[in-house]
Amino acid sequence: MRAITIPQPGGPDALVWAEVPDPEPGPGEVVVDVRAAGVNRADLLQRQGHYPPPPGAPEYPGMECSGVISAVGPEVNGWTVGQEVCALLAGGGYAEKVAVPAGQLLPVPAGVDLVDAAALPEVACTVWSNVVGVGRLGSGDRLLVHGGGSGIGTFAIQFGAALGATVLTTARAAKHPRLHELGAAVTIDYRKQDFVEEVRQATDGHGADVILDIIGASYLGRNVAALATGGRLVVIGMQGGRRAELDLGALLAKRALVAATALRSRPLPEKAEIVRGVRDEVWPLVEAGTIRPVVDRRLTMAEAAQAHRLVESNDHIGKVLLTVG
Amino acid sequence: MRAITIPQPGGPDALVWAEVPDPEPGPGEVVVDVRAAGVNRADLLQRQGHYPPPPGAPEYPGMECSGVISAVGPEVNGWTVGQEVCALLAGGGYAEKVAVPAGQLLPVPAGVDLVDAAALPEVACTVWSNVVGVGRLGSGDRLLVHGGGSGIGTFAIQFGAALGATVLTTARAAKHPRLHELGAAVTIDYRKQDFVEEVRQATDGHGADVILDIIGASYLGRNVAALATGGRLVVIGMQGGRRAELDLGALLAKRALVAATALRSRPLPEKAEIVRGVRDEVWPLVEAGTIRPVVDRRLTMAEAAQAHRLVESNDHIGKVLLTVG
Repeated sequence: MRAITIPQPGGPDALVWAEVPDPEPGPGEVVVDVRAAGVNRADLLQRQGHYPPPPGAPEYPGMECSGVISAVGPEVNGWTVGQEVCALLAGGGYAEKVAVPAGQLLPVPAGVDLVDAAALPEVACTVWSNVVGVGRLGSGDRLLVHGGGSGIGTFAIQFGAALGATVLTTARAAKHPRLHELGAAVTIDYRKQDFVEEVRQATDGHGADVILDIIGASYLGRNVAALATGGRLVVIGMQGGRRAELDLGALLAKRALVAATALRSRPLPEKAEIVRGVRDEVWPLVEAGTIRPVVDRRLTMAEAAQAHRLVESNDHIGKVLLTVG
Repeated sequence: MRAITIPQPGGPDALVWAEVPDPEPGPGEVVVDVRAAGVNRADLLQRQGHYPPPPGAPEYPGMECSGVISAVGPEVNGWTVGQEVCALLAGGGYAEKVAVPAGQLLPVPAGVDLVDAAALPEVACTVWSNVVGVGRLGSGDRLLVHGGGSGIGTFAIQFGAALGATVLTTARAAKHPRLHELGAAVTIDYRKQDFVEEVRQATDGHGADVILDIIGASYLGRNVAALATGGRLVVIGMQGGRRAELDLGALLAKRALVAATALRSRPLPEKAEIVRGVRDEVWPLVEAGTIRPVVDRRLTMAEAAQAHRLVESNDHIGKVLLTVG
């Protein structure tokens, strides 16, 4: 088969579509013939040599895909050759085939195109596990989503609104109309507006009950300032650095918490539990049309470098997909 | 009645036992004739002028007491004059009488002396709400308790052990034998040992699933280092300052969280909910003798200055009580 290899870490052109050995399904695994793979920011880090796949994972980038099951290994129940699926991956989605632990497979939701289904697993698992699992978002809560135009952001806006939360989001002004369409009640231009003040005003001084943050250090103090009493700040990315001063007194006065999580490094049983939760609680919303995959554009695997440049530019809205064949 | 007044904030001698007006029970309140009050670190801060009581609370120090109900206000059900009780207070325990919202009353547990019962409400509510409510401690978890010799510490050690957790604690070496008796599996002399290394060794590299911390800033980095994957750091005091660098990357790699909470500032319904939880889940353990009040000594209200000096010295183990009459 062919896969995106990284002979030498570096810029987008480090990605090379090359012939590699086919994967074999191990115990508890299936092989999926990939139809499309989602591009995630973590793939950019991996390309630069900063985010190696965990032990045992395929070495190629790609943390989610859609496709058709072409082989089923031993100790797999409930999945058969020929089924259309999408999957959460620890790596290897940028390829013609990938071996996947069966616990990370999801059916393609009814009404979703097989290619577009590749836009869902990573964002659905990340958003559900953090916003519900860690953040315990409830109906009527105020949810602040940073980077609302990203794949995570566009999904989190739809999901928060579907749960009955009031969703506020930061993004470039050009993206605001689309984010309103997706369900954001309040859009904040982070380049011109102070999000702490905007959140305060938009919530009558209440603040954000849950913040889903991809920025990290450079937002930490302001995120704590934007939290409501009892608020939960969930950090899932560190585009703004990893170390910052935390004012425990401010946190204590609000009886608030700061959590930081990642999906890729979790042990298989935890991933399978998250995938089950997504199937039970998120897939029905997708099948009802309440949440839709937001796909900025489709490129081919051979255009992976262009896809990475696009994601780096932050000019896209939603997901960028790489297709096979 | 008489109460401890603070005519001028300052050292222990700022506490003056003086004649003041009697409290009246408002709607939903009872008046308790105080038998004893527990001394808490927060009282020391209030004496220094740093921690005023929340609006509507009595102005005198004292966040817990035991005694006998002497008056019942309107809209109170289930409590009658003459009942022996203990209570969580927003202030006013250092007095002959105190008005208490009925939701903050607890019966004196069977088998516990009326005076000693004053040692329980604040620590039971603080430990239960943080270790179970925020920290979600489970059987088999490793619980690290900082300041194991304090009132909070001695209660947390007993409670953690009762829940089936392995309890590790930091304290001066002289206190270690008593803390082992209370249920601590591992005692760490924080003046001579690195608690991160000791926790790592004692847990075979696992780390602490829950940390109950009263130090704050000066322990933040080491606390994060001592956490297990998925660990919960709960900060309830800031004796070591309020601002410190947080390494979000370290937190994210562990999928961990930092929470900070306080009891005194919570709205009445939240306090009542905590008191109900304590009555349901902690009181049975006290009545079974699994958890005992740990009282270092009893002094009289007129000796409040001496009590504050003792708590400031950290030479005590457990609670210092101030008695009336």
